Amino acid sequence: MKNGRFALGFDYGTNSVRALVVDIATGEEVGTSVYNYQAGVDGVIVDPVDPNVARQDPRDYLDGLEAAGRGAIREAQANRKDFSPDQIIGIGVDTTGSTPMPVDAHGIPLGLDPRFVDNPNAMAWLWKDHTSYEEAGAITARAAEIRPQFLAKVGGAYSSEWFWSKIWHCLKVDPEVSDAAYTWVELADIIPGLLTGTVAPDKLKRGVCAAGHKAMFNSNWSGYPDKEFLVSLEPRLGRIRESLPNTAYTAGERAGLLTEEWAERLGLKAGIAVSVGAFDAHMGAVGAGVKEGTLVKIIGTSTCDVAVASLKTGLPDVPGICGIVEGSVLPDHYGLEAGQSAVGDIFNWFVNHCVPASYQEEAKQQGMDIHQLLTKKAQKQQPGESGLLALDWNNGNRTILVDVRLSGLMLGQTLQTRPEEMYRALIEGTAYGSRVIIERLEEYGVHIEEVINCGGIAEKNEMLMQIYADVTNRTMKISRSAQTPALGAAMFAAVAAGPENGGHAAVEAAQAAMGGLKERQFEPIPTNVKTYNKLFGMYKELHDIFGTDGYEANLYHIMKDLLDLRDAVREGKETGT
Amino acid sequence: MKNGRFALGFDYGTNSVRALVVDIATGEEVGTSVYNYQAGVDGVIVDPVDPNVARQDPRDYLDGLEAAGRGAIREAQANRKDFSPDQIIGIGVDTTGSTPMPVDAHGIPLGLDPRFVDNPNAMAWLWKDHTSYEEAGAITARAAEIRPQFLAKVGGAYSSEWFWSKIWHCLKVDPEVSDAAYTWVELADIIPGLLTGTVAPDKLKRGVCAAGHKAMFNSNWSGYPDKEFLVSLEPRLGRIRESLPNTAYTAGERAGLLTEEWAERLGLKAGIAVSVGAFDAHMGAVGAGVKEGTLVKIIGTSTCDVAVASLKTGLPDVPGICGIVEGSVLPDHYGLEAGQSAVGDIFNWFVNHCVPASYQEEAKQQGMDIHQLLTKKAQKQQPGESGLLALDWNNGNRTILVDVRLSGLMLGQTLQTRPEEMYRALIEGTAYGSRVIIERLEEYGVHIEEVINCGGIAEKNEMLMQIYADVTNRTMKISRSAQTPALGAAMFAAVAAGPENGGHAAVEAAQAAMGGLKERQFEPIPTNVKTYNKLFGMYKELHDIFGTDGYEANLYHIMKDLLDLRDAVREGKETGT
Repeated sequence: MKNGRFALGFDYGTNSVRALVVDIATGEEVGTSVYNYQAGVDGVIVDPVDPNVARQDPRDYLDGLEAAGRGAIREAQANRKDFSPDQIIGIGVDTTGSTPMPVDAHGIPLGLDPRFVDNPNAMAWLWKDHTSYEEAGAITARAAEIRPQFLAKVGGAYSSEWFWSKIWHCLKVDPEVSDAAYTWVELADIIPGLLTGTVAPDKLKRGVCAAGHKAMFNSNWSGYPDKEFLVSLEPRLGRIRESLPNTAYTAGERAGLLTEEWAERLGLKAGIAVSVGAFDAHMGAVGAGVKEGTLVKIIGTSTCDVAVASLKTGLPDVPGICGIVEGSVLPDHYGLEAGQSAVGDIFNWFVNHCVPASYQEEAKQQGMDIHQLLTKKAQKQQPGESGLLALDWNNGNRTILVDVRLSGLMLGQTLQTRPEEMYRALIEGTAYGSRVIIERLEEYGVHIEEVINCGGIAEKNEMLMQIYADVTNRTMKISRSAQTPALGAAMFAAVAAGPENGGHAAVEAAQAAMGGLKERQFEPIPTNVKTYNKLFGMYKELHDIFGTDGYEANLYHIMKDLLDLRDAVREGKETGT
Repeated sequence: MKNGRFALGFDYGTNSVRALVVDIATGEEVGTSVYNYQAGVDGVIVDPVDPNVARQDPRDYLDGLEAAGRGAIREAQANRKDFSPDQIIGIGVDTTGSTPMPVDAHGIPLGLDPRFVDNPNAMAWLWKDHTSYEEAGAITARAAEIRPQFLAKVGGAYSSEWFWSKIWHCLKVDPEVSDAAYTWVELADIIPGLLTGTVAPDKLKRGVCAAGHKAMFNSNWSGYPDKEFLVSLEPRLGRIRESLPNTAYTAGERAGLLTEEWAERLGLKAGIAVSVGAFDAHMGAVGAGVKEGTLVKIIGTSTCDVAVASLKTGLPDVPGICGIVEGSVLPDHYGLEAGQSAVGDIFNWFVNHCVPASYQEEAKQQGMDIHQLLTKKAQKQQPGESGLLALDWNNGNRTILVDVRLSGLMLGQTLQTRPEEMYRALIEGTAYGSRVIIERLEEYGVHIEEVINCGGIAEKNEMLMQIYADVTNRTMKISRSAQTPALGAAMFAAVAAGPENGGHAAVEAAQAAMGGLKERQFEPIPTNVKTYNKLFGMYKELHDIFGTDGYEANLYHIMKDLLDLRDAVREGKETGT
């Protein structure tokens, strides 16, 4: 056996799964491979009539596990002559979530059962499935009435994206699938279970990340919500509650050891450690270097914001923060998860549906994609110059309003408004949304000194990073790795393997050895900060009046203030404080 | 001389001037010709830095007068063998407005003076020039203080689109032009003045339409605003006031008789009657058949709504209605002018800047333009199905808010929103804007039983007409003529000629002989009316909260109500009352 030690991280995203082989001493990413899901539209099974539907075929998960894993190993072999697969000492897995799926008594997904192979209700209910918004509302209402402590830890409202809403909705709309489901399992738990042969419900180690953030699991009340509460919602939920354990595990602990079968399918040694799974954002935050004082933003189709706070100093409930869970990110820390329901998705929606042919032609001539062309044009604008203001709610608002029944808004259009101005306004809208989250965290004592960004958008779009720096008045840093979730998964793999197998003793040690930042950072530009303070004030008014019940305001000044600001910026006048 | 009698109408639009030869016995449109202005962008001189600037070169007006006039006559000769130019018994002129221009002591536009030939301030200040919004605000404020009666007749606010605001702004920004200006003359007045050799300030017959609707002329206070008031705004306005007469004339009265020079340039008999000029909307309304109980909507880049009310029954001041002027439309009636600052302009803006290449390709393949393709797709939607709601303020709000410092708004976008849905939402936005106007008129006793529409959009877009019928719950009729302003101008030409020259004795007689409707009418569909009542309620809330000072509201329900309505419509449920 050669000297180096490597870890294999799997990152299950919305449209594909990535595998990454990482050198655990240096963080060098030695080999990677992506498998695009085959089912539906880009891997998402949708419904032409109901825009709330988003499901995934579990076969894609298994096909992708093997294909991406082998691909990454193959690439590592090509890249590093001193690498061989038997130097991989552990596997980590992160996934989207809450993405639960119904399974049979053996823990096998019903979506693999020939009886249900074409039934979307038997498949995985992808995080962005919003069919259960009514159930989410009912859970929130009932919990507010009889179990307010449940809500306090999930930001005050239970979401239609989450575990119990989805299970309940399936009970309503598909009794056959619901009857066949022994229990429901998160994608983050089922993959480690399958890899280690512990998928059977009595053996499966469910992760505290999914359980705590999405299923109201908390050690303060003996695990998952009590049966009495669930039965008060829907009697048949009682049986599902009985199928669940009273313990959940932190990533870095071992889910089990790699089975012979999967060792063979992947070309690895059997018996290596597989970490308990967690969500992509959480492992991504670890991969990016999350620690006290540092907010990690994972900017993709949506955005996850992850922070931690010390268990020692304690933490009050933070209204609107999706989840505060002990050990969901780092051991001995509260993990805090926030996020924006759509960020890259909004820009893609705009590019696909709102940009004229002349721009597509121009982009082609300049050898750019449309995002690049729009960015190039938008970069020439000064803050406030367009007179536009947008809310970033095209897919609802996850934090701090926790409300999927919200929608987009753009304000300030004139007959002179151009696509690059609207594009920039949408980017600014997401920056304001991000600032709302940071302000809420700070308001409750979670101080945010720096922001580390990850994801392709953060790496590619300097204008966006500068706008985020200017709007939040904080330095924007970028993770060195382009694959922080998979890197984080590999860190947890190294921790699960442990020092006895050449791995790391703790997550912090893995971060120190394997993580890092890019050199390029974005500092706030004082004049822009001033203008954006003004614009953010207006954003916040729209945010509060459209998003908060019982809030009244007069908005007469908004369009005028935007036009005044536009004119002042164009004339080079002082714009704010 | 042959038997038939014909009239020649000129219609000066925003981008071109049209001439129309009409048979005064039947309304048959015998020949027409359009001259596109050459200066600037589509005839409008703009400023790359200041989007408020919109000027026109008076040379375009004169070149167009000759070219379009001769073209229409030529076509009439080709179309009707029994026509000869000497059968034309009168000329009528309508124009955009308020489109005033500075002139010298002989009444010659300064824009024709070699000293000022490249100075936009010396040219005509097109109706949609908004550079003088500060002056408009100051005039409104001062009038509210010391001359409230002035405001009562112009809807409560003086506009930046109007005569005095523009003159005052020119005084501020261009003393040289202002010093050279003996007086300022509306385009509607200068063309008849030039045609009849009465352009000198002491001879010129200014029309009551422009004077009353845009310059606060009213016989109740001896004509134009008193010098004391104007001097209190800006001392140099006193000199302009002195240059103005105390009388203004109704269209149909003679401005004078055609000069030898212009008779030769146009190929007509000298000495025929030329009517006093008026605005396109007013003459268009007459051409379309305006009468008590009938609202005429002229739908173009913007919209003008014209109604009349009997002088006998009297009329209170109607807040927000741009103007109420005796005799500005029909003799013995108040003429009421309302309007929307952008209608077709919004649709064109959207088509030019917000529709993707794939749609342009699809339109091409189907042999349609983009408007047709979007309409075809949008026609499949039911009211409420998109979840979108738009304000139609991309160019400010003329009626009932009289406020150019307002801007567009679209609300309800999701990641599934498609261009045809936004296109339809914008059309619906203009329909709601139109309903606000009708409701305001009715509230003050001007009953509107039917609506007659004119303009290319009304003729071409059946979906738009149906939406207008459904939103306003009124039958939409369409004028038979596609050129109602030019037709109206020809009616006034026939009246100015008078029975002694084979013309008509009164406007009503000219309307009866020369006007008419298309067979196709659009009746409200009861289920759509119900849904649109709901949507209009939400529009009205946004309208009031963004457009009215001191109005407070809670908008928390709006996005939710739109999503609930969307879902109900998609599921075929009952949606409203």
